[in-house]
Amino acid sequence: MNLNTQPYKGTRDFYPEDMRLRNYMFDKWREVCRSFGYEEYDGPILEPLELYAAKTSEEIVNEQSYSFTDRGDRKVIMRPEMTPTVSRMVAAKRQELGYPLRLFSIPNCFRYERPQKGRLREFWQLNADIFGVEGIEADIEMIQLADSIMKSFGAKDGSYEIRINSRKILNEYFEKSGAGDLGKVIRLVDKYEKLTDDKFHEELNKLVKNPNPILDILSGNIFDIRIDEFKKSLKKFGVDVIYDPKIARGFDYYTDIVFEVFDTNPDNNRSMFGGGRYDGLVGQFGVDPVPTVGFGMGDLTFENFLRANDLVPELKNSTDLVLITIGDVFTEASKLAGELRQKGLNVSLDATDRKIDKKIKAADKQGVEYVLFVGETELKAQKFNLKNLKTGKEIELTSLNDIYKKLRE
Amino acid sequence: MNLNTQPYKGTRDFYPEDMRLRNYMFDKWREVCRSFGYEEYDGPILEPLELYAAKTSEEIVNEQSYSFTDRGDRKVIMRPEMTPTVSRMVAAKRQELGYPLRLFSIPNCFRYERPQKGRLREFWQLNADIFGVEGIEADIEMIQLADSIMKSFGAKDGSYEIRINSRKILNEYFEKSGAGDLGKVIRLVDKYEKLTDDKFHEELNKLVKNPNPILDILSGNIFDIRIDEFKKSLKKFGVDVIYDPKIARGFDYYTDIVFEVFDTNPDNNRSMFGGGRYDGLVGQFGVDPVPTVGFGMGDLTFENFLRANDLVPELKNSTDLVLITIGDVFTEASKLAGELRQKGLNVSLDATDRKIDKKIKAADKQGVEYVLFVGETELKAQKFNLKNLKTGKEIELTSLNDIYKKLRE
Repeated sequence: MNLNTQPYKGTRDFYPEDMRLRNYMFDKWREVCRSFGYEEYDGPILEPLELYAAKTSEEIVNEQSYSFTDRGDRKVIMRPEMTPTVSRMVAAKRQELGYPLRLFSIPNCFRYERPQKGRLREFWQLNADIFGVEGIEADIEMIQLADSIMKSFGAKDGSYEIRINSRKILNEYFEKSGAGDLGKVIRLVDKYEKLTDDKFHEELNKLVKNPNPILDILSGNIFDIRIDEFKKSLKKFGVDVIYDPKIARGFDYYTDIVFEVFDTNPDNNRSMFGGGRYDGLVGQFGVDPVPTVGFGMGDLTFENFLRANDLVPELKNSTDLVLITIGDVFTEASKLAGELRQKGLNVSLDATDRKIDKKIKAADKQGVEYVLFVGETELKAQKFNLKNLKTGKEIELTSLNDIYKKLRE
Repeated sequence: MNLNTQPYKGTRDFYPEDMRLRNYMFDKWREVCRSFGYEEYDGPILEPLELYAAKTSEEIVNEQSYSFTDRGDRKVIMRPEMTPTVSRMVAAKRQELGYPLRLFSIPNCFRYERPQKGRLREFWQLNADIFGVEGIEADIEMIQLADSIMKSFGAKDGSYEIRINSRKILNEYFEKSGAGDLGKVIRLVDKYEKLTDDKFHEELNKLVKNPNPILDILSGNIFDIRIDEFKKSLKKFGVDVIYDPKIARGFDYYTDIVFEVFDTNPDNNRSMFGGGRYDGLVGQFGVDPVPTVGFGMGDLTFENFLRANDLVPELKNSTDLVLITIGDVFTEASKLAGELRQKGLNVSLDATDRKIDKKIKAADKQGVEYVLFVGETELKAQKFNLKNLKTGKEIELTSLNDIYKKLRE
């Protein structure tokens, strides 16, 4: 029986073409994060299950986790998100690290969900976090960073919007409502857009004694000076944000400001990514608490945004040139390739004994722009024909330097 | 109860300092692979278990795999190696891809082993493979590529050696010995160095009718023209290899030339990495076979080699500068940071209300070289003191351009 060539459900194969786009996205994420002074870190994909049981959403851990028992009887989980890992890492070196500590990572994460547009079982996520800043400066910087990332890809003003809210304010109103389980109310609010009004009220009535304070704050008609000042501060940096009391974020660990970045395209008007302040996680490891603000930005929704807004540039094969041999000149052609590499070019060699037009077709299939023909005649005369596969134009070159210059034009 | 701060057994946390070294290694791997015309790909960490049951080593699948049943009753495995994945991917697009197809990837892989020096449960591995070349040119290129990678890190001639062998030749002698299960004999030979002579003979006698042909070939005294020609071809490119008939490689799928790169340091005289030709894997997916040569290079043994040979350069924090605020100038300092970022610098901001020397210490802890002091006086006069934390020297600068120039010196 033949083996199946399909990847495991909900995961992707990245062929070179796909990988070029992924690298383009990830490299730019890295570049912007570094420009704000963030340094890259990484952690293991496998973590003890108990790390997530505490503060990640119940739904993710109980229904969507890839968790199992290892050969040594430890309960482990393939990370569904990165925040618990980075909190653990900071706690482990609480005293040795300098603050404000700015960290970013691009981990892949795993959730057992029904695969759909913008949602798969394996996905990547930029995580940026700032540790050790109690003041609102950290919240401001995090939203600035998110905004700068959007702009660095060429996203236009108006093509996305940033909505903010405060868990602290939400909680104050929830308490006035006599909510028994704040987490459950948060998760209900997080699903607000997906429920009918009737359904929302019905569910809310099950969770609280008096729904009115919650309905008041969700109406958006309540003015809060804290939100107002936060908006004004961001405005000073040219970042406009919208107050949206229904922004709750699914995770349990947020403690104050939360934000989400929305795609404003009417065909795809959805939250793309978000984050907020979570001051309580590091302290769970038995060390002094560290105030923290961060966000996570998934690759799938972001790629959809780039495509929908026509922001994916043409991405070329990294190979500058294929040397195509004519006849039995493998050794000589291979040496020539080595010399061109020394000059800084990316050069591959097709020394198979197929016909020349087959070789040209193969290079073209791979998206390489130039081929150079190398046979005994060419080597003797030190004259080589360089062909541009896009334009079809062919020119004769007589030195390595000329080849190098032509390709670096 | 407090949560544990330790990473899961056999895995690593990569703090920024560790990540700098990892990025240094991976970036250079990428650079050299691209210079030979290889393009990056990636595949999912989770694969169907059956993908490995066929041709990976029995030991790895049965005793060392991270395999489990998912919530949809599928048997899955966290990849213990990359070769089956890339073979699957090539098979899936057998007709659409151009050949010779050169691919590389740096996946993390998982094996449940006893953690020890150079061996952990989660490790990364450079995989480079060339598809579609029947001739020995592909084997030559692969060894050239491995050699170029070693040299690109500054490895000196003599600090490592490349040993080659041929599975085809081994198999010829195994067949003369009347071996029932070739795979078992291969795995025994692969363990040769770890066994006493007596134990080896005892085990060998269990597997074959007549051990003499095997002992003959393993003695190294048999001349084979194919090996000799292969060595001579590599010599033309300045690559010296040693014929070692005991190089077997653990995986079942190799079909001809195999090679391993050894650390020659007497304290650590061990195989660091290797590869070879495996012409049969792609065909297992029900498409026409594709001849393939490749190798895999683990991060752990390689990092040990770099350290032992003093080849790890000083790697700096990517942050060029920390702006340290004096007094309540967050907005102004933040704008200044933004302007310096526009010029291409990586700039972070410490606007916490701690004492200045605490802020300096924190920047120094993170390995940042420069800090700039920004207070009301400085902003009014547009004169800023830049301090080099390594030398302790402080100079006054009066424009953004001067700050930029000084840092880019």
